[in-house]
Amino acid sequence: MGKREASKSTNIVWHQSHVTRDMREAQAGHRAAVLWFTGLSGSGKSTLAHAVEKRLHGMGARTFVIDGDNVRHGLCGDLGFSDDDRVENIRRVAEVAGLFVEAGVLTLTAFISPFRRDRAQARELLGDDFIEIYCDTPLDVCEERDVKGLYAKARAGEIPAFTGISSPYEAPEHAEIVVPTGSEPIELSVDRVMAWLEAHQWIRGEKK
Amino acid sequence: MGKREASKSTNIVWHQSHVTRDMREAQAGHRAAVLWFTGLSGSGKSTLAHAVEKRLHGMGARTFVIDGDNVRHGLCGDLGFSDDDRVENIRRVAEVAGLFVEAGVLTLTAFISPFRRDRAQARELLGDDFIEIYCDTPLDVCEERDVKGLYAKARAGEIPAFTGISSPYEAPEHAEIVVPTGSEPIELSVDRVMAWLEAHQWIRGEKK
Repeated sequence: MGKREASKSTNIVWHQSHVTRDMREAQAGHRAAVLWFTGLSGSGKSTLAHAVEKRLHGMGARTFVIDGDNVRHGLCGDLGFSDDDRVENIRRVAEVAGLFVEAGVLTLTAFISPFRRDRAQARELLGDDFIEIYCDTPLDVCEERDVKGLYAKARAGEIPAFTGISSPYEAPEHAEIVVPTGSEPIELSVDRVMAWLEAHQWIRGEKK
Repeated sequence: MGKREASKSTNIVWHQSHVTRDMREAQAGHRAAVLWFTGLSGSGKSTLAHAVEKRLHGMGARTFVIDGDNVRHGLCGDLGFSDDDRVENIRRVAEVAGLFVEAGVLTLTAFISPFRRDRAQARELLGDDFIEIYCDTPLDVCEERDVKGLYAKARAGEIPAFTGISSPYEAPEHAEIVVPTGSEPIELSVDRVMAWLEAHQWIRGEKK
C-alpha cells in the first residue's frame, strides 16, 4: 500500500522496535513498582520515601521519588487546592508513576492522598505495581511536630480544608505496608519497607 | 521548637536525605538529557526515537521514550486538539521529561510539536538538557507514505488543523541535530544521533 510503495521508492524500510519494560528490568536487576506513601501532613512520608530510596540506590537500584517538591510548581503547577484539582493532582502523579514503572524504575510517591477513592484509582491504574505504604503517625503527634507550622495555621482557620483538621484523612484499610512512623527510628521504618519488598520478591536481598 | 521537642519526646530524629541526579548519573555511567524529536506526522520521529533508544539500551544506558502511545490516553487523556490543549500537552511532556532527567534517564520524546514557541518553552524549562532533533522529512514524502492514512483524511477536510496541510509546521532554526529521515536508512540516522551524543560527551563511545 502507500507505506510500502514509499518504502520501496526510497529503498527504506523503517521497522518500529521497542525496548520493553522486561528488558529494562532485566538490565536493572530488579522489578519496577510504585511505592505509594500516604499519611497525614507531618507523618514522615517524604522523609521515609527518600530514606528508602537512599537504601535502594545504595543497592544499585534505579529509583526516583515523586513528591510535592518536584511536581507542585512543575507538572501540577496549574492546579490549586479545590477538590477537583486535588483529584487531578493524584491522577497525574499516578500516570507519571506508571511511566516510570514502564521505564523500569522503583518509583516512590509521597503525597497525603487522603481519600480512599483517589488511592483506589491509582491502584486500579497501576495494578499489581501499586504498593500502598501507610505512614501511620497519629494526628496528635503530627500536630505536635508541626514541622511546617501548617497545623497551627489550620487551627487558626487560615488554611481551609486542611487534612486531619478540617478535612478527613481516610486511613488505608488494606495497605500493603503499615509503618508506625510516629514511634520508631527511621532506620527501623526503612528496614520494615525493605523487608517487605524482599519478602515479596520485588528486590533481592541487600548485599552485606 | 515544636519540632525539636516532639523529636526529643519520642527520641526520634528524622533527617531528610536525598539521592541526587549526580548520584544517579554516576551510577548509570552516562549523563541524562532529553532528546526532543520533532517533525511532521510520518517523518519518522517515533521510529527513530525507538531505534536510538534501542542502541542506547544496548550500551547499558537508562532510557525511556515518551510519545503519543504512552501519554495520549494517560497523562494527557484529558486534553483534546484545541490550541490550548496542544500547548498544555507539550508543557506536560516537557515537565515529565524533566523529572526523567532528574532520575538520570536518557529521555526521548517524539511529538510533532509544530510550534517554535512551544519547543522554545520546553528548551527554557529543560535548559542545557534539551537536545532538539529535527526529523527533516519533506511534506511530500510524509504524505506519500501516509502510514496512518491521516494525510488523505486531512486533504479530504476530515481532520481540522492538520500539521502540514491546514496548520503550519515551523521547522527548527537551530536544532542540535538535523536528520534527513526521508532519504536514508534508519541505521544511518541512528548513527548520526549517536555520533552527536558522543561528540558532545553525553555518552561514551559504544563498546565495540
